[in-house]
Amino acid sequence: MGIAQADIGDEEMRRQYREAGFGGRVGWGERPALLVIDMAGAWVDPGEQLGSDLRTVLESILQLLNVARATQVPVFFTTMAFASPAEVGGVVSRKLTCLNAMLIGSERVELDPLLRRRPEEPLLVKPRASAFFATNLLSTLLSHRVDTVVVTGCSTSGCIRATCEAAFDNNLHVIVPAEAVGDRNAHAHSANLFDIDARYADVMPLEEVLTHLKGRAR
Amino acid sequence: MGIAQADIGDEEMRRQYREAGFGGRVGWGERPALLVIDMAGAWVDPGEQLGSDLRTVLESILQLLNVARATQVPVFFTTMAFASPAEVGGVVSRKLTCLNAMLIGSERVELDPLLRRRPEEPLLVKPRASAFFATNLLSTLLSHRVDTVVVTGCSTSGCIRATCEAAFDNNLHVIVPAEAVGDRNAHAHSANLFDIDARYADVMPLEEVLTHLKGRAR
Amino acid sequence: MGIAQADIGDEEMRRQYREAGFGGRVGWGERPALLVIDMAGAWVDPGEQLGSDLRTVLESILQLLNVARATQVPVFFTTMAFASPAEVGGVVSRKLTCLNAMLIGSERVELDPLLRRRPEEPLLVKPRASAFFATNLLSTLLSHRVDTVVVTGCSTSGCIRATCEAAFDNNLHVIVPAEAVGDRNAHAHSANLFDIDARYADVMPLEEVLTHLKGRAR
Amino acid sequence: MGIAQADIGDEEMRRQYREAGFGGRVGWGERPALLVIDMAGAWVDPGEQLGSDLRTVLESILQLLNVARATQVPVFFTTMAFASPAEVGGVVSRKLTCLNAMLIGSERVELDPLLRRRPEEPLLVKPRASAFFATNLLSTLLSHRVDTVVVTGCSTSGCIRATCEAAFDNNLHVIVPAEAVGDRNAHAHSANLFDIDARYADVMPLEEVLTHLKGRAR
Repeated sequence: MGIAQADIGDEEMRRQYREAGFGGRVGWGERPALLVIDMAGAWVDPGEQLGSDLRTVLESILQLLNVARATQVPVFFTTMAFASPAEVGGVVSRKLTCLNAMLIGSERVELDPLLRRRPEEPLLVKPRASAFFATNLLSTLLSHRVDTVVVTGCSTSGCIRATCEAAFDNNLHVIVPAEAVGDRNAHAHSANLFDIDARYADVMPLEEVLTHLKGRAR
Repeated sequence: MGIAQADIGDEEMRRQYREAGFGGRVGWGERPALLVIDMAGAWVDPGEQLGSDLRTVLESILQLLNVARATQVPVFFTTMAFASPAEVGGVVSRKLTCLNAMLIGSERVELDPLLRRRPEEPLLVKPRASAFFATNLLSTLLSHRVDTVVVTGCSTSGCIRATCEAAFDNNLHVIVPAEAVGDRNAHAHSANLFDIDARYADVMPLEEVLTHLKGRAR
Repeated sequence: MGIAQADIGDEEMRRQYREAGFGGRVGWGERPALLVIDMAGAWVDPGEQLGSDLRTVLESILQLLNVARATQVPVFFTTMAFASPAEVGGVVSRKLTCLNAMLIGSERVELDPLLRRRPEEPLLVKPRASAFFATNLLSTLLSHRVDTVVVTGCSTSGCIRATCEAAFDNNLHVIVPAEAVGDRNAHAHSANLFDIDARYADVMPLEEVLTHLKGRAR
Repeated sequence: MGIAQADIGDEEMRRQYREAGFGGRVGWGERPALLVIDMAGAWVDPGEQLGSDLRTVLESILQLLNVARATQVPVFFTTMAFASPAEVGGVVSRKLTCLNAMLIGSERVELDPLLRRRPEEPLLVKPRASAFFATNLLSTLLSHRVDTVVVTGCSTSGCIRATCEAAFDNNLHVIVPAEAVGDRNAHAHSANLFDIDARYADVMPLEEVLTHLKGRAR
């Protein structure tokens, strides 16, 4: 059973989903990649409109980055940014007014420097919650013959869930290390982690993910 | 404020999202379409593995259908079905074992006959949660110059949310009549309706949607 | 050099493309699939509006099917069909009036029976030239961990080229056995085969493709 | 009859396509946008590997830009560029070796300064031939309620054809002003313009496009 199912919902909810045929364990494929979603100023700085305290999430991601870089697992980062508010789009800019300030070149769309992104690790600038929408992510993953994505970053109830769903839709294996995803709101975090585990990804303890990555022969 | 925000979460959560710049009101575009998602045997028959009691949801949808048909609003239905379990795909069939029994030709993938689908109302067979994934829905909407989708059916925490997000990603206006979407689990329903209203769609009372549709000149 | 470049264009054109950096050889990946595009009544029956004499193309495809089936290479078929003319879409139905008669259930959208499609070989019903547009093909290929598609069928200047491009866009290796693709018009065939080889796929003699498939260890 | 059909092929080929149900006239929708594809250094400088003399094409585009800007028709530009050769992708970089030198920040990916792009006119950086692949173009067009794209730039046999097809697949009206698209090779230009007109777009004289745009009430 996934960590999300152990953490949230009551026993009745977990039983209902199990009997309905959700939440099967998919496990790992052969070639993983690590996705680090939106760990940029706008989200990791608690003084920002969208920001919250994501220090423990960042710490977990740094552990994953260490292992990924040591074992040649490809790493991809994302941020959200637009050339101008007009390019957000009419509907999107009215629903998510926060996006109108996410301008290319501003500090708030820059990755947290602690991530120490390397030149060979692509930074994808995405316009929507899913890292796959209107980006080259899927084709780049296929270029590396990746069949498994480890999804980390923020926010669980937005970009993490959307990215997991899009990867799953394409029959990629999706792994979420529970401690490596975060959200500004604890209720939204746990409710969405439950859904993610039931529908799109295997949610696992960070330790289990680290152990698997270290143990891979490549 | 949307109905979802009034219904769920505490005052603190609603304040937090408002201050972070979520949940703006987008409103209606010029040309709506009505989407009826997965109101088929597998979901509407409580005796089915995925089923639950959706009679009030169906009743709401029937009211919307009446108005849509009387005012030339195009209507689209979806169901999920596969030619064989093998076509579900490896990852998907292991996570959502319930899908392996959703076979083309079986009664459980047929629409509820009370919907009385008309020949000119397309029935899209979709393989994933979103009605836009691997279907012709977007291009068909564009053929009708639709800029607004009214999303109804089930389940709020799965196909409804996914369909709202995909429509929103494409800058379509998305309207969710709260009484016309349902879920087998009340917690999942309300948590996801909150997210949908905050991120992707304007959740409104059914009455408001009916009034708007009746009032349109076309 | 690919067969297409040997067949068509003058020496000057081939030199120009080579110097401009087109037409590199990509070669095979590790896991191929065989795509058989639109070998259905509407195209293979010369009495049909869209039809032409494709007997030698069919013969080449039958050789490829024999080898693919003997070596566990997954096989996918496509046809084009619509539930009603209205579902073709306004723009598409005016540009390609031929599509308005491609109705689900009609004989002209049925595969040539000589192909003897097996139940485990999916038949994708596609609404546009590319076999990837609005279908589940990419995710199903990924489910099989396919990284190479052998594209066969018709028409070279329409569905074959479009399918090659879409596969290439996703970083799949694309192989076109020259004798296994056909077109109603010889000029359109050779001009497009040149472009396909220069931009999207390695065009090869059928014999080379058969030899490679037979020689794979799996 | 479109200009392409008048220009190329023999009478027999034109008759064959007409009888097969290709090449219908679609005409204009209600809200056009102007797309200017890849008029950047790599293509417009004849000294570049991919370059050729496109001065008359540029001149035609400048006329269209004048009218579009005077009549509030939205304008979109594209170029191709990558952060590093690694981000081109394995298959793509081997087939189109020319792309490996298209690096973000280099002069060759910058638009021709004569276009005088304005801040409100988006510049999309695309990784493939189609301006719609892995970009936000479609959703941005929908934000403007665009239903018609006027496609200009280069190369007819690559990015122009691919962009026309993708727009058409989504039921957008596609207009190609014949004098405003160009290619390094005259044979490839005319063969592809024929296909574009037969399958995806209405190819028209530049004068007809200018007249239509000037005549629009908005």
